[in-house]
Amino acid sequence: MFIINKLGKATFPSPIKGSYFMSDKKRILFDNTIGDLKSLRTADDRPESIELAGPRKMIYFNPEETKAAIVTCGGLCPGINDVIRAIVMGLHYRYGVKDIVGIRYGFQGFIPEYGHENLVLYPEFVKDIHTLGGSILSSSRGHQDIGRIVDSLSEMKVDILFCIGGDGTMRATDLITGEINKRNLKIGVVGIPKTIDNDLNLIDKSFGFDTAISEVVKVIQCAHVESRGAPLGIGLVRIMGRESGHIAANATLAQNDVNLTLIPEVSFDLDGERGFLRTLERRLIERGHIVILVAEGAGQDLFMSDGVRKTDASGNIKLQDIGIHLKTNIEDYFKKRGTDISLKYIDPGYIIRSVPADAGDSLYCELLGQYAVHAGMAGKTGMVVGLFKNEYVHLPLKATSSRRKVDPKGNLWMRVLEATGQPPSMKK
Amino acid sequence: MFIINKLGKATFPSPIKGSYFMSDKKRILFDNTIGDLKSLRTADDRPESIELAGPRKMIYFNPEETKAAIVTCGGLCPGINDVIRAIVMGLHYRYGVKDIVGIRYGFQGFIPEYGHENLVLYPEFVKDIHTLGGSILSSSRGHQDIGRIVDSLSEMKVDILFCIGGDGTMRATDLITGEINKRNLKIGVVGIPKTIDNDLNLIDKSFGFDTAISEVVKVIQCAHVESRGAPLGIGLVRIMGRESGHIAANATLAQNDVNLTLIPEVSFDLDGERGFLRTLERRLIERGHIVILVAEGAGQDLFMSDGVRKTDASGNIKLQDIGIHLKTNIEDYFKKRGTDISLKYIDPGYIIRSVPADAGDSLYCELLGQYAVHAGMAGKTGMVVGLFKNEYVHLPLKATSSRRKVDPKGNLWMRVLEATGQPPSMKK
Amino acid sequence: MFIINKLGKATFPSPIKGSYFMSDKKRILFDNTIGDLKSLRTADDRPESIELAGPRKMIYFNPEETKAAIVTCGGLCPGINDVIRAIVMGLHYRYGVKDIVGIRYGFQGFIPEYGHENLVLYPEFVKDIHTLGGSILSSSRGHQDIGRIVDSLSEMKVDILFCIGGDGTMRATDLITGEINKRNLKIGVVGIPKTIDNDLNLIDKSFGFDTAISEVVKVIQCAHVESRGAPLGIGLVRIMGRESGHIAANATLAQNDVNLTLIPEVSFDLDGERGFLRTLERRLIERGHIVILVAEGAGQDLFMSDGVRKTDASGNIKLQDIGIHLKTNIEDYFKKRGTDISLKYIDPGYIIRSVPADAGDSLYCELLGQYAVHAGMAGKTGMVVGLFKNEYVHLPLKATSSRRKVDPKGNLWMRVLEATGQPPSMKK
Amino acid sequence: MFIINKLGKATFPSPIKGSYFMSDKKRILFDNTIGDLKSLRTADDRPESIELAGPRKMIYFNPEETKAAIVTCGGLCPGINDVIRAIVMGLHYRYGVKDIVGIRYGFQGFIPEYGHENLVLYPEFVKDIHTLGGSILSSSRGHQDIGRIVDSLSEMKVDILFCIGGDGTMRATDLITGEINKRNLKIGVVGIPKTIDNDLNLIDKSFGFDTAISEVVKVIQCAHVESRGAPLGIGLVRIMGRESGHIAANATLAQNDVNLTLIPEVSFDLDGERGFLRTLERRLIERGHIVILVAEGAGQDLFMSDGVRKTDASGNIKLQDIGIHLKTNIEDYFKKRGTDISLKYIDPGYIIRSVPADAGDSLYCELLGQYAVHAGMAGKTGMVVGLFKNEYVHLPLKATSSRRKVDPKGNLWMRVLEATGQPPSMKK
Repeated sequence: MFIINKLGKATFPSPIKGSYFMSDKKRILFDNTIGDLKSLRTADDRPESIELAGPRKMIYFNPEETKAAIVTCGGLCPGINDVIRAIVMGLHYRYGVKDIVGIRYGFQGFIPEYGHENLVLYPEFVKDIHTLGGSILSSSRGHQDIGRIVDSLSEMKVDILFCIGGDGTMRATDLITGEINKRNLKIGVVGIPKTIDNDLNLIDKSFGFDTAISEVVKVIQCAHVESRGAPLGIGLVRIMGRESGHIAANATLAQNDVNLTLIPEVSFDLDGERGFLRTLERRLIERGHIVILVAEGAGQDLFMSDGVRKTDASGNIKLQDIGIHLKTNIEDYFKKRGTDISLKYIDPGYIIRSVPADAGDSLYCELLGQYAVHAGMAGKTGMVVGLFKNEYVHLPLKATSSRRKVDPKGNLWMRVLEATGQPPSMKK
Repeated sequence: MFIINKLGKATFPSPIKGSYFMSDKKRILFDNTIGDLKSLRTADDRPESIELAGPRKMIYFNPEETKAAIVTCGGLCPGINDVIRAIVMGLHYRYGVKDIVGIRYGFQGFIPEYGHENLVLYPEFVKDIHTLGGSILSSSRGHQDIGRIVDSLSEMKVDILFCIGGDGTMRATDLITGEINKRNLKIGVVGIPKTIDNDLNLIDKSFGFDTAISEVVKVIQCAHVESRGAPLGIGLVRIMGRESGHIAANATLAQNDVNLTLIPEVSFDLDGERGFLRTLERRLIERGHIVILVAEGAGQDLFMSDGVRKTDASGNIKLQDIGIHLKTNIEDYFKKRGTDISLKYIDPGYIIRSVPADAGDSLYCELLGQYAVHAGMAGKTGMVVGLFKNEYVHLPLKATSSRRKVDPKGNLWMRVLEATGQPPSMKK
Repeated sequence: MFIINKLGKATFPSPIKGSYFMSDKKRILFDNTIGDLKSLRTADDRPESIELAGPRKMIYFNPEETKAAIVTCGGLCPGINDVIRAIVMGLHYRYGVKDIVGIRYGFQGFIPEYGHENLVLYPEFVKDIHTLGGSILSSSRGHQDIGRIVDSLSEMKVDILFCIGGDGTMRATDLITGEINKRNLKIGVVGIPKTIDNDLNLIDKSFGFDTAISEVVKVIQCAHVESRGAPLGIGLVRIMGRESGHIAANATLAQNDVNLTLIPEVSFDLDGERGFLRTLERRLIERGHIVILVAEGAGQDLFMSDGVRKTDASGNIKLQDIGIHLKTNIEDYFKKRGTDISLKYIDPGYIIRSVPADAGDSLYCELLGQYAVHAGMAGKTGMVVGLFKNEYVHLPLKATSSRRKVDPKGNLWMRVLEATGQPPSMKK
Repeated sequence: MFIINKLGKATFPSPIKGSYFMSDKKRILFDNTIGDLKSLRTADDRPESIELAGPRKMIYFNPEETKAAIVTCGGLCPGINDVIRAIVMGLHYRYGVKDIVGIRYGFQGFIPEYGHENLVLYPEFVKDIHTLGGSILSSSRGHQDIGRIVDSLSEMKVDILFCIGGDGTMRATDLITGEINKRNLKIGVVGIPKTIDNDLNLIDKSFGFDTAISEVVKVIQCAHVESRGAPLGIGLVRIMGRESGHIAANATLAQNDVNLTLIPEVSFDLDGERGFLRTLERRLIERGHIVILVAEGAGQDLFMSDGVRKTDASGNIKLQDIGIHLKTNIEDYFKKRGTDISLKYIDPGYIIRSVPADAGDSLYCELLGQYAVHAGMAGKTGMVVGLFKNEYVHLPLKATSSRRKVDPKGNLWMRVLEATGQPPSMKK
């Protein structure tokens, strides 16, 4: 069930003018498909449903006395500054909240030893930050002590904490909320989930995704040009996609030049008549060039001989570099055969995630930020805002924690197979 | 009720491989909000619902013998070529339909006197057309005789007609479907609705909209630069938006530089202490410059003294040029006052609608085209494909014909008022 | 002869480190072609030559006590902010000049009644201004009293005035220099000539020109798309080019889609079998669409029936709008013939001149600014910096005042005729 | 001396219309500086001078019987397709030469065993190729037998060979010309020198350079965003520049965010108090982030302990990867100190060189191609076309073979030092 917690009863009238308030009771169905009406009901005869986001008529915090904090964690992604800007603008102009701080370098900013000073955020300061990539607050990876983070929130007298971050951040945010509850503090915690990979469970689309696709498309065009620029040219592009291939699949479809797409969800062998190398060779001989797009999480089982996988500071599995691995294996393969190839390897990673959001993502981020503000002011806590079936909703922090994968039998992957002409399987 | 007609029973197995077929019975609720379960039901105890798009296991047409035609009507919009490409690719690769013609210059292409020859469409031909703006089929406005269009379809032995076009086109398409039915022909008619204004009823977002916003944002930046480049500088930008202000409102929010936004949904007076001219003057004196964004359909009541409005060849109301009207009035106003202003008028219309779709729109168009193909092959007719609550659905042709407006009391317009700082009303 | 005046003897050693100083005596030949050595000599056996720009070992002003002012006049052009930035950076970092003011709104900024306050300029302030279009100082047109400008310079104790502006500005700057000399003041005046039209006499290329061409090319692509998007489609684009057609000619060559280019240097008739309208009609009928590019100064003789031409506030001739004139005449022509055309008129003017400079122009502007600083500090006055035969030089203010035209018999125009396929003459 | 060879006497009148022919005798001075007139003269009392490019009134080849071939060699660079297009257009439209072949994959295309088939080139085919990056002819590296290349030219009855390529290509082209002369064949050889590094001796600017700078600037912005996005963030960007640092230096100046630029011309030590690592550390501690731009040829002496350097297939020195070397050393350095840094390494190489030329480069390439055609038709051979002091000239193949370096005491490098704030020397 998608129950959203509140810090307490909302007793202040909202300062927002207009007549478009949203009731806490307004919810949308989790499953809005209909075959048979029975499917709409759960055991207790009430269908599973989700709370709609939006301004509440009555709010929990008195705007004049409210202090808000914003923190950004994990890797960069187009649109973070747009979200920050929208939160500050929304708090300031719509609610009259004037006391807003930006925590620097992620959760490190709560730990005094690091010596990061907070930024004071206000409209004039954030006005143009959406034209910059990255996060004006900077970010960091790695765990920090939950108790000390709450100590810091408490000392700073923060009323609402807005967290922009990925999986790991949302897990930490959940722990922070738990600790706040244990201490019986009245601090609301609102998350805005971030992942450039577009693999958030339940969420229609993660912010920054369209911008990322645009950038990947440009890189693929370069790889295509390079592959055609030399005899037996191979353009090999490694992009993001740790656990899911949404970016790789969508970039393949948005453009026409990829001939082989590799994603984490579809494993493959290097060797064997049906394996990756022979498949690549056949296409290369036939057409004289080939463009390969590989998501960083693809083919990780190729490194698993020892059965152990490492994790980084944020607890994410440390991936072996599949791009370099493929590059080396392709070069070795053709060297053995005495065939002169011309392989151009491109790893654009940081270039893609650090550009500013395009206009579409910018508008999306603006709304995510606004709805986060409405939720925070209403006293909602332990939750994230997201777009679900084209409606902005509140979801419990845990609800988005599992990854949405590309279904190897689904429509998206089928279209990729047709677009590239690659075989459905490259297993021996 | 959202009932989709079919030409007849689907008797051919789909050639598509995979297991992701969609049943005709799979529908989603029209209203997925829940307060009280009763609201889910109509009089006959069945809730209003909408058919989901997707490949059907059994299809109506035998792909080997199927002939498809594509026509594009009305004004240009980013993404038309992406839709054409997706239809051709989908028909060819997923169903094996090889006989595809492109009708040139809209419905004119069906009328022999015009002498427009059809194009033969195939994958190699459409492969890269998504990098071009406009429509490779060209377009036209204006009515053509419905009977003669159906004569032509019949003579050409077209089985499925794909129509990409706006309001007027969809009305004509509905009449074509009616005439086909009357003659008892087995020709399917599938629409892909197009409007750069994003004001289609029921549809989440019209294709090309994000691309258009990006372009408008660039123009606003220029207007901003110009307005600041001269003493008492006024940047006046007229953009599209015949009956709705979605583009104007969203472009205002995607960017920070508009100080006054005018849309069709909110009328205003030129004169009077609270009117447009005095409002403009106050801001101009105070800040030294101003940027005004006006949707072409705004302020049309200012021209209504005679109570008559003209219509163009497609039956659209012929709008008076509000941009020029404002320009003239502003110049006269300040001339009378003896104030030297520097007004720069920008009307970028054609520049915005003729660019290629960005990556996000490109992906969206690809899916619209694919789903149109699935619908057409399944024998669906008199319908459009669209995105409804983030699901691709089938809607009757008539369902999208009314316009979605910007609500002057809603969240979108409130955010615009806050972003610009303009008064809620500029009526005398 | 290209003699550069100096305020007096340079008595301070330059604070610049390094060994790349340029001597005042280092000059390059005005005419570096060689047939016969005699041509190198003037009557007094000395060839005409031009002074090279660059840092001087000894400078006239004591950096610690120097005050500089920057003013920008006339219309906007990509790169103005880059020049401002380079002047400030160069003065500050290379010479240690800390007292720099920006005059606002052109020469108006010198006249107290306008009430424009000066900006204080320093590195941190100008650091990122090259990412913005326009001029951070704003600009204005129109004459101001020369005596009062010099009064103001004198009262402000300005030592060096840097003027960025066009023809009219350079004429005014020359008068200012004269007045300064008459009063025996020691104020240096250095110009950086600006014209988006690339028609400065002697100067290889005016800054902002490449950026402008890039923007015009985008607009032509849109016009091309529009012209092909409708039956008998005509894309008519009016661009800048008051007295010369360099932008129109180069944009035509940089791109492939213009079919008819009109420039001020080549007059044409509307009527007659060989005239513009019949030429247009022939191409339109033959190919179904046409793109026309017209420089704003083209065809002005069509308006000369009364023999009088008006001038604007800066003394520039006021041009009639040839774009609208052609539009009206084309529409009337085809109306009379009963032919339905689809004419799309695009006038992108302000959009093109208000974008930021591209990287190439940015680098060029940086050097112009640097060399202006070196000249100013060395006590040079009544001069401009410019690129002449790929060397940065000093030229007297008057030397660049005549316009460089497109030669109707030269290589550039021949290539345009070949690219468009238009007839060499469209006179009756 | 800059003497240009000719195949023989030009006996055909040029078919070009117009009056802008250039005489073989029109030359410009090699040294156009003037201090003292004597410096203008060589021993035989004639100053060193260079032949001007342009159409000749009389030409050597009969256009109707002329066959031309175009070949592109070496690495990709923005603008190659523009040059190809201009050659084809110029030959076809200006001279009426209809027999033009494109040799595929560089000099490999002349050797039958490789099996590369020639392309037939004509206007419709090349019309839009300037919108594509790379070379439509593809390219290759490595030596081919000179005798066999001439055999092939002879068998194909090629009259003029146009070679687009870098250093190595020009050396090979020189050998081909020699072999042609030895065999007494009447085949003209015209080079269009290509290097993205802008380090051609004598040539004002190599084509593609401005476009490359634009792309590098975008990457630097990303590195800047990344460096600021994490605690102690280091953005390390490796770009091209094998033997010269022009791209690195100019990209640093075109933008504001590089804090340390490393070029081949200025050697440095990693260790020592004044070395690279300590310099980096000081800046990093002080400001919290740093962006480093390194040209691929920088610091190669760090790898020279064995005193041997390898060469690739084209005879170019094989560079060790300074980017990876710095990355490893930086990481090790801070690891030893126990400091957590966040280093983001970006190697955009192929992305930068494979984009299409921007409008400015496009126009430049068009002229280079045109002048190459004029030279070829006039019977000039063993030469290249280039821009010298803003004039298009003919230079002997050997004249451009030495590299133009960045002068570590010159204006360009001084400006870089000032822009970055880095110390003049990072030697121990």
